[in-house]
Amino acid sequence: MADYTRMSVEELQAEQDLLRAEYQKFKNMGLSLNMDRGKPCPEQLDLSKEMLKMDNYIGENGVDARNYGLLEGMPEARRFFAELLGTTPEEVLVCGNSSLSMMYYLIDLGWRQGFVDSPRAWRHNNSIKFLCPVPGYDRHFRVTEYFGFQMINIPMTPSGPDMDMVEEWVRSDESVKGIWCVPVYSNPDGYVYSDETVRRLAQMTTAAPDFKIFWDDAYVVHHLTDEQVEIPNILDECKVAGHPDRPLMFCSTSKITYPGAGVAAMGASLRNIHHIAKNMVPMIISYDKMNQLRHVQFLKNKEGVLEHMKKHRAILQPKFDLVKDTFKNELEPCGKIARWTNPKGGYFISLYVMQGCAKRVAQLCSDCGLSLTGAGASYPYGLDSRDSHLRIAPTYPKLDELGTAAQLLCICVRLATVEKLLQRAES
Amino acid sequence: MADYTRMSVEELQAEQDLLRAEYQKFKNMGLSLNMDRGKPCPEQLDLSKEMLKMDNYIGENGVDARNYGLLEGMPEARRFFAELLGTTPEEVLVCGNSSLSMMYYLIDLGWRQGFVDSPRAWRHNNSIKFLCPVPGYDRHFRVTEYFGFQMINIPMTPSGPDMDMVEEWVRSDESVKGIWCVPVYSNPDGYVYSDETVRRLAQMTTAAPDFKIFWDDAYVVHHLTDEQVEIPNILDECKVAGHPDRPLMFCSTSKITYPGAGVAAMGASLRNIHHIAKNMVPMIISYDKMNQLRHVQFLKNKEGVLEHMKKHRAILQPKFDLVKDTFKNELEPCGKIARWTNPKGGYFISLYVMQGCAKRVAQLCSDCGLSLTGAGASYPYGLDSRDSHLRIAPTYPKLDELGTAAQLLCICVRLATVEKLLQRAES
Repeated sequence: MADYTRMSVEELQAEQDLLRAEYQKFKNMGLSLNMDRGKPCPEQLDLSKEMLKMDNYIGENGVDARNYGLLEGMPEARRFFAELLGTTPEEVLVCGNSSLSMMYYLIDLGWRQGFVDSPRAWRHNNSIKFLCPVPGYDRHFRVTEYFGFQMINIPMTPSGPDMDMVEEWVRSDESVKGIWCVPVYSNPDGYVYSDETVRRLAQMTTAAPDFKIFWDDAYVVHHLTDEQVEIPNILDECKVAGHPDRPLMFCSTSKITYPGAGVAAMGASLRNIHHIAKNMVPMIISYDKMNQLRHVQFLKNKEGVLEHMKKHRAILQPKFDLVKDTFKNELEPCGKIARWTNPKGGYFISLYVMQGCAKRVAQLCSDCGLSLTGAGASYPYGLDSRDSHLRIAPTYPKLDELGTAAQLLCICVRLATVEKLLQRAES
Repeated sequence: MADYTRMSVEELQAEQDLLRAEYQKFKNMGLSLNMDRGKPCPEQLDLSKEMLKMDNYIGENGVDARNYGLLEGMPEARRFFAELLGTTPEEVLVCGNSSLSMMYYLIDLGWRQGFVDSPRAWRHNNSIKFLCPVPGYDRHFRVTEYFGFQMINIPMTPSGPDMDMVEEWVRSDESVKGIWCVPVYSNPDGYVYSDETVRRLAQMTTAAPDFKIFWDDAYVVHHLTDEQVEIPNILDECKVAGHPDRPLMFCSTSKITYPGAGVAAMGASLRNIHHIAKNMVPMIISYDKMNQLRHVQFLKNKEGVLEHMKKHRAILQPKFDLVKDTFKNELEPCGKIARWTNPKGGYFISLYVMQGCAKRVAQLCSDCGLSLTGAGASYPYGLDSRDSHLRIAPTYPKLDELGTAAQLLCICVRLATVEKLLQRAES
């Protein structure tokens, strides 16, 4: 292998022949591999087996979790999530198994009804804009797209979204009503917002009086190194800055216990919590409090969660290392044809390939039985204008399958790059 | 005791003194009794204890219920609810723990987006009307009130809503977009829709092309007698009548296993199901499939459910009998001062007191430590124009407490009646 960017056309053609032969070997293996979604593997799910043996469903307040009531959640569950979110228990609502559906509900609430600080429901505005740090989480973008909001790309940096751009947008345009944030181990880069980013988000002046930060703390305890990254608390910072009603914080146990049957919670100012709970009354009598109790009895508190997360790390860290090592060994010798992130936690690695190659890489992988998240999926409307980004999800496959997948992926990256360089040489 | 309606003023005054003394005795007891909501008692909840020992979470299709996926529900759960709802599994979506939140979601969907047969989203209409059989379920009415729909009272009869009135409204007014129905053991009367009612609902001509029947089959297997009442299937009838997209059917295990942690499902035409599932995609990745699997493994099928419901009946029937016997013994001798329903299933008895007395009865009970559902709650906007109806929920209190509660209730009915008759005599 040598630096592709310095190869002659003849050398590139020879390399292309070699890579095609390599690729064909993988094709002959009849693979069926999936690096598509951020999905825990079965061994991770087994870590929570003990939780299912729980059989006391009376809460500390004497409330029978089996029966109706307590829309806000069991008190011990509110306390548990308050510790994770860094709020008081009264600033927490504990809901069902899906934090996504809580975010959806709050977008819906803002649009349909408005928030405590809204002059009117968002739907009465001619247009609504949302700031979308990119690359970001496709399901966030899908919610705002579904509600017809215009999505504004904000480039991500290793310290968070480009804050100069964020500040300019929110200052100058009152139709900008919110921003999507995954502040710790961002999806998909694995970046962590800096203290300065958090404070600027809290302090910035917004033209919209009801600007909302959707603070999706999905990976708040999902460390992959000894460093347990923590950042300033957005609700605290917003209170200090005089904007207590600005942040809506979310977290869940989806990637602590069970993705399909975890517990999700939100944190916000008391005024927000009262407004939201009041509006939820017509919708539901109470969420699944048995599952809330099950979780608190099993995980106990933040310390218990962090202990539990070490077991996840033991399974996941080798997978992340394997992928990064393969990238290093297979891609670095080819010159600057790709770069990738090196997350200290979370569920993803971002792989940035040469401009105009991402879709081709995903197609080559798919044709060979390896599913990746669709190229462009991490951008609003699925549009990665550089066609460069791929979201790599190393958690689900078994280690040996993952090795094969990473090898194949590198072959595809190299092949797509050579094809692109040959195209350029021709034109 | 004698017929109050034939008493002289002096006799009424003497009776009032007696009743006040009786009432004071209850007051001295310092009671705290609750007949407020249709809530199963702890003994009923204990019936499902075995369900919690389940520990296989791999579905029949090999899907791991613990992980993400399968928005429509586990296949065995769809089959289970299809049998309860009388549909095919493909015509079913199995969701979370709350059928109310599914109904809310569908009202929201119609309003925000419209249904497959909607010319446009309901919110673009100047006004939306919903037909509300009265008395009915307060939480149904709250959803439509929350969305600003105008609610039209339709009197209930022992064979269902007054169908002449229903047909006239839907035929003549295209802003009438739906009707709330609890077809079997209606809340709160315990009435069962007749075959004719079901067929007229299916066949009637509606001015709105997207008229929807919200068919809340909350008590479909909640029998209190040997007679397992069944009625024609609304989806079948609507298909035959050429209106397959008219009904949206709901049921749940809230009053089969756990009110706070059951499983809810909906049934509808394939066209409706596809439309609804497609719109749910931005909202949620999947519902709690572990709880779905737990339920199916425990209850197995409709036959299993019916066996399980016999255990509920053994607990509930004596409670219903006690209340009705107390009414008979304590109220009948006083003349036609009250009437009550005699449900063969469900969770409620309707008690109709003399016009203008219901609020006073509820107040007298409350002052003595007995909570009833607020008088008027079973009517849209809480307005019972006759102030006559009380919803009696006998399920939650222990049998001895229930006896005390029923006795007290009868004293309060009699006292309120005597007060009213004396007022009338004065004026």
